[in-house]
Amino acid sequence: MSHIVSYQHLRDFTREVFVRMGCSPADADTASEVLLSADLRGIDSHGVARLTGYVRLWEAGRINTKPNIRIVHETPSTAVVDGDSGLGLVVAPFAMAIAIQKATAVGTGWVSVKNSNHFGIAGQHAMMALEKDMIGMAMTNASPLVAPTFATERMLGTNPIAVAIPANEQPPFVADFATTTAANGKLEILQRKHEEAPTGWIQDKDGQSSTNPHELKDGGALLPLGGDRDHGSHKGYCLGSIVDIFSAVLSGANYGPWAPPFVSFLPLAPDPVGQGLGHFLGAMRIDAFRPADEFKSHMDNWITRFRNATPVAGEKVLIPGDPEREMETERREAGIPLLEAVVKDLQEVAGKFKLNF
Amino acid sequence: MSHIVSYQHLRDFTREVFVRMGCSPADADTASEVLLSADLRGIDSHGVARLTGYVRLWEAGRINTKPNIRIVHETPSTAVVDGDSGLGLVVAPFAMAIAIQKATAVGTGWVSVKNSNHFGIAGQHAMMALEKDMIGMAMTNASPLVAPTFATERMLGTNPIAVAIPANEQPPFVADFATTTAANGKLEILQRKHEEAPTGWIQDKDGQSSTNPHELKDGGALLPLGGDRDHGSHKGYCLGSIVDIFSAVLSGANYGPWAPPFVSFLPLAPDPVGQGLGHFLGAMRIDAFRPADEFKSHMDNWITRFRNATPVAGEKVLIPGDPEREMETERREAGIPLLEAVVKDLQEVAGKFKLNF
Repeated sequence: MSHIVSYQHLRDFTREVFVRMGCSPADADTASEVLLSADLRGIDSHGVARLTGYVRLWEAGRINTKPNIRIVHETPSTAVVDGDSGLGLVVAPFAMAIAIQKATAVGTGWVSVKNSNHFGIAGQHAMMALEKDMIGMAMTNASPLVAPTFATERMLGTNPIAVAIPANEQPPFVADFATTTAANGKLEILQRKHEEAPTGWIQDKDGQSSTNPHELKDGGALLPLGGDRDHGSHKGYCLGSIVDIFSAVLSGANYGPWAPPFVSFLPLAPDPVGQGLGHFLGAMRIDAFRPADEFKSHMDNWITRFRNATPVAGEKVLIPGDPEREMETERREAGIPLLEAVVKDLQEVAGKFKLNF
Repeated sequence: MSHIVSYQHLRDFTREVFVRMGCSPADADTASEVLLSADLRGIDSHGVARLTGYVRLWEAGRINTKPNIRIVHETPSTAVVDGDSGLGLVVAPFAMAIAIQKATAVGTGWVSVKNSNHFGIAGQHAMMALEKDMIGMAMTNASPLVAPTFATERMLGTNPIAVAIPANEQPPFVADFATTTAANGKLEILQRKHEEAPTGWIQDKDGQSSTNPHELKDGGALLPLGGDRDHGSHKGYCLGSIVDIFSAVLSGANYGPWAPPFVSFLPLAPDPVGQGLGHFLGAMRIDAFRPADEFKSHMDNWITRFRNATPVAGEKVLIPGDPEREMETERREAGIPLLEAVVKDLQEVAGKFKLNF
């Protein structure tokens, strides 16, 4: 059974929760917009379903709702931002705005962030660049759930990469993907449905292929994109590692197995190698390379040509961002479906802050 | 049967071939170094085995050995380079040097290149940044052999990505991989051995999974990293597309199915959308983010921790770049093994230029 809630109602409720947690009205507005962009775009695992998780992290003293987010080092095209333990939902847009400013000044801007928390969906931050005729990029490290090729130990997060590229008449190209075969959210769906996972998504505690979606509870791990060595899992391991290093080693955050867990009941590593989680955000001004109109009309051509590539019988060739954009149109109109369990969580959060949901 | 040839002999021969094709001594030196870096690092498909391919492209008038390689547009952190149909083996190092100069000045440098040709292995260009205490990146588009998810048509190249990151006491992290399940070179090896390919590497002309390594000759295609939709092939398709757009749409080169083929017997697209092939090169100064010594000692820690991750029984956890570095040490000492077919090709090239091999 699912409940349909309007975007506006969910947005107002979420904003108010962040205010009650101590966020400024402006920060609560940003945080609720970023969080709910996941629900709008159909990435239900990263949206309002996580609100209770953020509340618990705040209760555990791991989120500072009045952070002094600031640049601690910079050059004309780079900066390191200290998120001061703030919500990643607020820290990442702050950092992306700096990347955009630097791109405006010198062509590109690149910001590595330390001392942050989970930032919602990467695509939302990357897309901030589009209206400025820039290419946007966003990545983050995350709780260690992924085993490198040939390892049984969980060393990396699902470490997503997002790249948003503007077009002219066509909608933008927006890639946003975990560097694993399947995101953890997809496993959670299988768990709820009591279904098996395809091979290549997970391994058991000994590193053997498994189809049991509960394997992570028993010491198993998610697999890097590729699945196994024969199918290029070393490439997914490379990608997840690059995200980890750009986000955390470059900024001074915790990297690899030291990355702080999202769930508040898991302890932080006793021997941190940095501060909080890390992100990496980038912006490249199109006209730092060629006139924006020229580029965007070639992007129209690129997108049209790929969308019209000969399809496999009965299938349709998609452009990155197509499914999420269609979902957003639908859900802004028809509302956002919430699972019973999510509604219960939100009611619990409402009770905590004496709000109605 | 394989022949072992010393690096020095192969290097001298290759340099002389480039000189006879009309390259300046300096360009011939660079081109031979870049081409042979593939043989040294064990990526035999991209090394001297391709020398005859470059010669044929030159004979077909598609390579200009006296190019006027130049910047056609720039900002403090970006440039577009016109390769003037030169050897990618020469054009890419020229562009990477500009990226490094710009990073020296403003923190990062990003160069998109048009009107070039195949540039050898991406990793070699990315690694140019290491000795400057910079992170290096290199990517290129290539002949269309890869079908997007749900397509039967070949729209993208194997479009590799390389990222090189310096450490202190540990050797550098060097990732260099095609954005497909398996590179075309691996299929060629199976063809020669008359062996089947694993599922997930290729599809037939109707988009059905195939294990026949000759499938490309019959209208089949390589598959994006992930293999199929269930295993994340849409992510590999995203990666290949990003490489194509950064390398070719940003610079004004041919993109997607318009990318010029490496083999001279295939015609160029009759309706080009740009000039030649495209590359994208980047450099980020470490100390544009944090002190280089601090970063590099954390990289030592990252590398050591990952190398010591609990392994699957009987396996060893590797750091990106480990196998290629070990191969290079071995081959610099013991020489480079060449297949009979490659030796014959090189003897034919030798005959053409009245050289000995």
